[in-house]
Amino acid sequence: MTAVSVPTSTKFDLGPARALLCRECGNETPLAPEYACLECFGPLEVAYDFGKIRREDIEAGPRSIWRYRGLLPVPSTVEQHPNTDPGGTRLVEAHNLAKALGVRKIWVKDDTGNPTHSFKDRVVGVALAAARELGFKVLACPSTGNLANAVAAAAARAGWKSVVLVPSNLERAKILMSAVYEGDLIAVDGNYDDVNRLAQELAAENEDWAFVNVNVRPYYAEGSKTLGYEVAEQLGWRLPDQIVVPIASGSQLTKVDKAFRELGQLDLVEATPYKVYGAQATGCSPISAAFKAGHDVIRPVRPDTIARSLAIGAPADGPYVLDAVRRTNGAIDDVTDEEVVEGIKLLARTEGIFAETAGGVTVATAKKLFESGQLDPDAETVLLITGDGLKTLDALGDTIGPRATVPPSAEAVIKALGSPR
Amino acid sequence: MTAVSVPTSTKFDLGPARALLCRECGNETPLAPEYACLECFGPLEVAYDFGKIRREDIEAGPRSIWRYRGLLPVPSTVEQHPNTDPGGTRLVEAHNLAKALGVRKIWVKDDTGNPTHSFKDRVVGVALAAARELGFKVLACPSTGNLANAVAAAAARAGWKSVVLVPSNLERAKILMSAVYEGDLIAVDGNYDDVNRLAQELAAENEDWAFVNVNVRPYYAEGSKTLGYEVAEQLGWRLPDQIVVPIASGSQLTKVDKAFRELGQLDLVEATPYKVYGAQATGCSPISAAFKAGHDVIRPVRPDTIARSLAIGAPADGPYVLDAVRRTNGAIDDVTDEEVVEGIKLLARTEGIFAETAGGVTVATAKKLFESGQLDPDAETVLLITGDGLKTLDALGDTIGPRATVPPSAEAVIKALGSPR
Repeated sequence: MTAVSVPTSTKFDLGPARALLCRECGNETPLAPEYACLECFGPLEVAYDFGKIRREDIEAGPRSIWRYRGLLPVPSTVEQHPNTDPGGTRLVEAHNLAKALGVRKIWVKDDTGNPTHSFKDRVVGVALAAARELGFKVLACPSTGNLANAVAAAAARAGWKSVVLVPSNLERAKILMSAVYEGDLIAVDGNYDDVNRLAQELAAENEDWAFVNVNVRPYYAEGSKTLGYEVAEQLGWRLPDQIVVPIASGSQLTKVDKAFRELGQLDLVEATPYKVYGAQATGCSPISAAFKAGHDVIRPVRPDTIARSLAIGAPADGPYVLDAVRRTNGAIDDVTDEEVVEGIKLLARTEGIFAETAGGVTVATAKKLFESGQLDPDAETVLLITGDGLKTLDALGDTIGPRATVPPSAEAVIKALGSPR
Repeated sequence: MTAVSVPTSTKFDLGPARALLCRECGNETPLAPEYACLECFGPLEVAYDFGKIRREDIEAGPRSIWRYRGLLPVPSTVEQHPNTDPGGTRLVEAHNLAKALGVRKIWVKDDTGNPTHSFKDRVVGVALAAARELGFKVLACPSTGNLANAVAAAAARAGWKSVVLVPSNLERAKILMSAVYEGDLIAVDGNYDDVNRLAQELAAENEDWAFVNVNVRPYYAEGSKTLGYEVAEQLGWRLPDQIVVPIASGSQLTKVDKAFRELGQLDLVEATPYKVYGAQATGCSPISAAFKAGHDVIRPVRPDTIARSLAIGAPADGPYVLDAVRRTNGAIDDVTDEEVVEGIKLLARTEGIFAETAGGVTVATAKKLFESGQLDPDAETVLLITGDGLKTLDALGDTIGPRATVPPSAEAVIKALGSPR
């Protein structure tokens, strides 16, 4: 799988992006609206010629992901077009959580602060910028939640049409969250797999539709690198010892790893060793299962978990996740739905951060990996919290509520506070 | 109402704060855990000795509201204690919204990016910092929504106990949003007025409880100034021509005005003229009614509107709102619940920003004020969007939804898109 360097040229201004490179056979092809290798049908990834990039130039940039535009497949003029300007979210030192887990130092990267409150704004931002340059006219996706939000909002802001496909049995609240932007939200009678297949078919038939996670995927996926860049910059331009990343398709984990490697290669940080850890819900844990069994092949599963934003039974980037985790001496584990809920509540109680179920997966898996000794309690650990608890309120069920319901008297309040929980 | 300068001293380090000043009789009292004038029972406000403050010092500060700590009643060490680090939210140039309204230039200050997705994180952040210095041990509030969220989260992060009182008939989703932080959330059988009276009683009886919007209110309210500071800094250190602010108690509007005046007095911006506009829901519009009638006295009303975060029938800062609006030659208007929903949808459709009902009030009132000629379409206008649509999903009712529900076939999707809406 060595890259075969062939002369490439492009008519597109996608900044430092040089070509598309097949992750399987290494074949290089010019930058284009493609996503599968013409030689072997393997997935394509963006390759770069970065040139010299300095910390000062990044630091002088905007607060959004566009401060890293020199590291992304987007035009240098990206900021001149309306977009949601994602990124620049908090990196919170989690003293109370570290204390609760009995470990030295934990940082929480809180991506709920993005415009539509998940990391999907990052990938959609990059996809939109690349799609514009590549000549697409419509922003589209299949989704069951966060991505639908991000695409509908980004298209509205950009003045583009959007086509968002969701399963018709999606919760009403999630439909409203995306429908409010008044793009073309279409409910499809079928499950997410049906919707995804439909997106592939529509992408093939409508050449100016950019399905961000299908035919624009090589560009889209690069947006996740910005999570890695931000963490390193917010730590004072250095890499953490350990980072725990939730796994859906697995793309995010591989891109955070890619970001850390790039920063080292570009001398933007010292290339210190780091370990990448993956987190799954047991009800959809094909990569965790393969990791534990020492397999290289991922056996698809039928998802059954409350962590619906991670519920991809046949994760496209599974093998690359295994590579990254094994290369960095990390690990992968999975947690039950009960542990997910406990993870959400632990983070909320200790740090005042309300994560969606995927965040509960990350926190609970980190707890488990500390307990098993696979995460080092004396090292510094970063947890990626990629989505917002307001979007998955149902998952908390009846596990929380008021401490007491009382008549309007001060005495009643004091009495309620004094009673055992 | 001229300030009577008397010698004051304090044992508290509250940064540039010098004293508490009665807004009614001008009596000055040392900084203390007080909120009502000992002479006339008027509301107290923080007075300052700022000294020299330079743009460069602010710009070198953190991204949060603490970059303005030299302008707030908080210790200089405020950042050393865990807090939610609110602020630093986007100021978005709203090209599409301006075009839709037929006006020259609109900026949207999008405070949904705060840690619990409303501006309340700002005021609670300042209240917590001041409360710590003043010797309080418990963070508390009466609330029906955003404030409950912000207090519960901030207390969790700080490692403080919290007591949050809400009406027991509050929607289940809103109870969950605050209960997840596992402070002492108490449901009270009664309406918000009952809960508020109960808070006053409890504040009097429990001297180490900081009810942020009751007995810590003078400090708490100053947090809203940061919205004004941020807008001016993000505009490149200048004041906008016009700003539209939603009104609940009215505190926020008066503090944004105060912030603009301070920036001019401190030579941080040129003291150019600006006009402050207020926005209310017609179902709770006592200040708008007084403004239109030319009255100085606010007649309390019984709120009946979907904009529940603005539903204060007897707004404490009403007279000061009238003063600020009249002094700056602004105006106040109000909009129906139907217009509120249209305002939410207009902002989402044009800019990809999903605001709560209060944001719908702001957008719809701005539209009305442009149409009546009270807002100048050729001037530059800032709209404050202070809370998140995810918190008021119910308000959208059946007005939005999928464009169509179709079987899983490409043909069916294309047909649905081609049909009239």
